[in-house]
Amino acid sequence: MKAFCFDVFGTVVDWRSGIAREAAGFFSRYGLAGIDPYEFAAAWRTLYQPAMEACRSGKRPFTRLDILHRENLVVALGNYGVDVAQLDTNALDQLNTAWHRLDPWPDVVSGLTRLKQHYIIAPASNGNIALMVNMAKRAHVPWDAILGAEVTQAYKPSPPAYTRMVEILGLPSKDVCMVAAHNSDLHAARECGLSTAFVARPKEHGPQQASDLEPTEDWDIVARDFDHLADLVLPKN
Amino acid sequence: MKAFCFDVFGTVVDWRSGIAREAAGFFSRYGLAGIDPYEFAAAWRTLYQPAMEACRSGKRPFTRLDILHRENLVVALGNYGVDVAQLDTNALDQLNTAWHRLDPWPDVVSGLTRLKQHYIIAPASNGNIALMVNMAKRAHVPWDAILGAEVTQAYKPSPPAYTRMVEILGLPSKDVCMVAAHNSDLHAARECGLSTAFVARPKEHGPQQASDLEPTEDWDIVARDFDHLADLVLPKN
Repeated sequence: MKAFCFDVFGTVVDWRSGIAREAAGFFSRYGLAGIDPYEFAAAWRTLYQPAMEACRSGKRPFTRLDILHRENLVVALGNYGVDVAQLDTNALDQLNTAWHRLDPWPDVVSGLTRLKQHYIIAPASNGNIALMVNMAKRAHVPWDAILGAEVTQAYKPSPPAYTRMVEILGLPSKDVCMVAAHNSDLHAARECGLSTAFVARPKEHGPQQASDLEPTEDWDIVARDFDHLADLVLPKN
Repeated sequence: MKAFCFDVFGTVVDWRSGIAREAAGFFSRYGLAGIDPYEFAAAWRTLYQPAMEACRSGKRPFTRLDILHRENLVVALGNYGVDVAQLDTNALDQLNTAWHRLDPWPDVVSGLTRLKQHYIIAPASNGNIALMVNMAKRAHVPWDAILGAEVTQAYKPSPPAYTRMVEILGLPSKDVCMVAAHNSDLHAARECGLSTAFVARPKEHGPQQASDLEPTEDWDIVARDFDHLADLVLPKN
């Protein structure tokens, strides 16, 4: 193994709490305090896969996630009966970049800092480059490079999202390990020849989470968190 | 200013000494000790612009620099009368990645480490992503992201090499400062609306260097080295 590439939303950062935090502030400023911010976070996120699917299927050219998120924000607010035309455009833009200000899970920075001593570490996220850079700088996530959809011009789980990343890294595919809290992401990565590591994030979807609590295939690595991942793959002293 | 994007070959790293060092080892192993390694480094580098020009002009699709370097290596050795077919392919591949193992100028890591506290820092190089990542890990260069030709799919000084980078960063073009030891790079960046910083590297081409010893336009910033650049743009305590 030479490189670890990470899913980000859910695996590295807690998007649900972060979006709910910023949405709550927005709703209270705009007299929308009746909307539950956690429900809203999930509702906004629900529009994510269909928006990317339009790009994956070729209905629409590749479009970076900040733009898809902004379109989805308008739809999500509209679904709650909010008259978006009455809202300040700058405030909507600001809420849209809440995705740039998500907090990592508590083990992330320490685990990645250790992994970085021996391996290339990079996000392999559907998030765009600016989103990943701003998130990493705010939270001190020490990536070696920002890879992912905007670099490969392909949204996971399309195969080019994985195969182009491997080619860009100039490594045999087995030397690149996809790390994710989502079995489906690892399944797609394995189909492309990458190694796989599962790290469960049982609170990604809140207290009632029912999916991805356990590995569903025999992934190459199963770790409790990023510190445990580092324990498993770093050379012993 | 929000982001500083750096030319790399010449501005961040001393390619001439690094290539000469690895070429000298290669030549001595293969009985080619008659070739001057510094001359060879310059000869190999001379093929760089024409190879990129084939991509810039559209004669050839965008092709990452590792591949262009490898083709140019065969040509450069052939120009010295070396029978490349007699050489070990793995050894040629290894020499080709000498570009991944170049040393930064002495002020680079300290200056960038300081700049990173307040700004996004990224290479805006014609080098490909793996080349930049491997170079940065070996030399502890603390980039926030790897930008450049493989991300924009355009070789400098083509305008898309600058304009797509600005768009990817999601910033107004004036908030992105191109840093280079080459006036021509800054000229092209300024034409695209970026801010500009000149850092002279009077030994890039060896002791006889005659070009780029001074700024040839009124660049926004002129710094002696990266530490000085940090002094000029960081907030004073």
